[in-house]
Amino acid sequence: MRAEPDRLRFEITARDGIARTGVLHTAHGPVHTPAFIPLATKGTVRGLEAREVAGLGYEMVLGNTYHLFVSPGPERIAKAGGLHGFMGWDRALITDSGGFQVFSLAHGGVANEVKGSGRKGDHGSVVSIGEEGVRFRSYRDGASLFISPEVSMQVQTALGSDIALVFDECTPFHADRDYTARSTERTHRWLDRCLEWHEREGPARQAVFGIVQGGVHEDLRRESAEYVSAAGVDGLAIGGTLGRDKAEMREVLGMTAPMLPVDAPKHLLGIGEVDDLLAGIALGLDVFDCAVPTRLARHGVALVPDPDNRFRLDLRKSGHEGDRGPIVDGCPCPACQRHDRDYLSYLSRAEELTAVRLLCLHNLTYLQELMTHARTAIGDGAFDSYSAAVLGGAAPWST
Amino acid sequence: MRAEPDRLRFEITARDGIARTGVLHTAHGPVHTPAFIPLATKGTVRGLEAREVAGLGYEMVLGNTYHLFVSPGPERIAKAGGLHGFMGWDRALITDSGGFQVFSLAHGGVANEVKGSGRKGDHGSVVSIGEEGVRFRSYRDGASLFISPEVSMQVQTALGSDIALVFDECTPFHADRDYTARSTERTHRWLDRCLEWHEREGPARQAVFGIVQGGVHEDLRRESAEYVSAAGVDGLAIGGTLGRDKAEMREVLGMTAPMLPVDAPKHLLGIGEVDDLLAGIALGLDVFDCAVPTRLARHGVALVPDPDNRFRLDLRKSGHEGDRGPIVDGCPCPACQRHDRDYLSYLSRAEELTAVRLLCLHNLTYLQELMTHARTAIGDGAFDSYSAAVLGGAAPWST
Repeated sequence: MRAEPDRLRFEITARDGIARTGVLHTAHGPVHTPAFIPLATKGTVRGLEAREVAGLGYEMVLGNTYHLFVSPGPERIAKAGGLHGFMGWDRALITDSGGFQVFSLAHGGVANEVKGSGRKGDHGSVVSIGEEGVRFRSYRDGASLFISPEVSMQVQTALGSDIALVFDECTPFHADRDYTARSTERTHRWLDRCLEWHEREGPARQAVFGIVQGGVHEDLRRESAEYVSAAGVDGLAIGGTLGRDKAEMREVLGMTAPMLPVDAPKHLLGIGEVDDLLAGIALGLDVFDCAVPTRLARHGVALVPDPDNRFRLDLRKSGHEGDRGPIVDGCPCPACQRHDRDYLSYLSRAEELTAVRLLCLHNLTYLQELMTHARTAIGDGAFDSYSAAVLGGAAPWST
Repeated sequence: MRAEPDRLRFEITARDGIARTGVLHTAHGPVHTPAFIPLATKGTVRGLEAREVAGLGYEMVLGNTYHLFVSPGPERIAKAGGLHGFMGWDRALITDSGGFQVFSLAHGGVANEVKGSGRKGDHGSVVSIGEEGVRFRSYRDGASLFISPEVSMQVQTALGSDIALVFDECTPFHADRDYTARSTERTHRWLDRCLEWHEREGPARQAVFGIVQGGVHEDLRRESAEYVSAAGVDGLAIGGTLGRDKAEMREVLGMTAPMLPVDAPKHLLGIGEVDDLLAGIALGLDVFDCAVPTRLARHGVALVPDPDNRFRLDLRKSGHEGDRGPIVDGCPCPACQRHDRDYLSYLSRAEELTAVRLLCLHNLTYLQELMTHARTAIGDGAFDSYSAAVLGGAAPWST
């Protein structure tokens, strides 16, 4: 770990088994952990103003370097005072490296849907992947663009995030062991190039998180965990494929998390389902980002305390006509406080923007409540029973 | 006029020439006039929650009978406590008759775009128009639907609006004098059927406005104004084509408005551009509804004090990059208070929901400010100079 408290200080405030609460002290204020981080993919959390996201209690959002690199471009954002100034967000900000998106273009199978993008088929294409970096075509105008460890760091410097993520190859699920091994080694060389560039030219107050790769292979994950831990990063993220299903994901996480330095802040990339968040917290992970709550909202799906249906309620399905109840009893969000399932299901089927917005507010409230109450439970030494209650169908705020 | 103060009382509070201020006392509270009425086409003002529309100061919204008839249907809305209960709006509500939309299907040329619908080509089709009513196919599922004066009143009764509009034929611009004359006569017979049904079965506290047709023809407009005025309605609306361009529209309005009873509340249907609102107010009209502010928002266009560009600023055009100014200096809306043109133009081009929402908030704030200040100016006997200032490029709130 680099010891530069000005840049990022992670304070662990309570422990309950391996789970812990903490505070990430960033250049733009504290982030209480465990924390869920909403995506502000293209400089906005879908349908919400920055002040509203803060109003929900969120202390950090994640900006997507790939999308912002393609449009409006780093120069324009730098001139606006960085992504903070551009989007009017004065709390903490983390940016990804662009790696996930460009490798999704190349590999296809990394994600069913490139994070945060609502349209399919407009993601451009990858022209070449090499040691130097990745060349791809802009989905916007077909222009040839190049991204490398140095370019990624440079763009993230322009974005001025409080935490930058290193440029890595997000190995796909279908990659074999040999490919994953070679890819992980390249990711490590890229990590060094990122840190070298950042040490020389990065902003003094921007922290850098390394990314642990290695696919589903224990030895590769261990090798990667050791390499990244020794590299002098401010925190660690777990990336790449975690397996074909939830069982394998839990297994890979269960073996990888203990390989990371206990006291470092740990970010689990791209995971945000209710049960997965609880599993991650139990493993001592601190920060989680995911497109799920806002993507579900776009498709008319609300988070509910229903473990048998993956905590989801599809409001576009029939059966909600005349239902005078809220999405979830006791939920403090504006959708639940002011509207019933009857109206929300109609609005969702009519594809009204108001529905997307109300469901975004609901889903983000739901996860924020989950994290807030998880933190309280950890402080009370009661995380296991809290987790069991939620997994058993309790609302996040009801225990 | 029917004298049932319980249903609707219109109180004129000040006069300045022909312009006047007033209060429409409805079963759901007062509406201060002159008033602009946002469209809640499908049970929501685009992208906004009902509480937010009230927060902007609006006291009445307009629901579209045609759209709500097709989906979710009057029975479901009635069970929710009417449109007020369904959408969570506790202030005044006016509903149109469905006539404008079904005749748009039939005539094509009535409107460039059917009010409030974002998609083209999904408006269904008209099967037959007769004395009894209009048969058409649902754009939703192709089902055969029938709307008549009685059905329209019945649906509006289910919606429970404070003001219902009678079912009329909205004659298209390209209709000739003979067609318009015959159509206007049928509209009058439909008016009688509407009132007859409503007298017998309509809610006691729902007011009914008649609609004056007659196209661009002075004698037909006069005949219609006399017929509707004598029919025992609670207020009058001016409908139908007002001509090929703004000059002809002003001419038709200028001759029609004085034909209406001075003390009746008067609604100008479907008109909402800044200069047209001021012209309407000068003619003693009280209430205006229009899709323009929300439709423009969807297309990235903001209202600005720029008479040479029809008071519009297209944020999707280039030229706003790096512009650190708000859409309009001094505008109290959240878009102008918190964001600059640089960011808003990027968001609009990226087609982010947040942009549509922020521009809706801006455009509706702009028109609300225009109406609020117009009312103050009328109270001060200074409407002409206020109007001249705004038409000369002053912001609505700056004089």
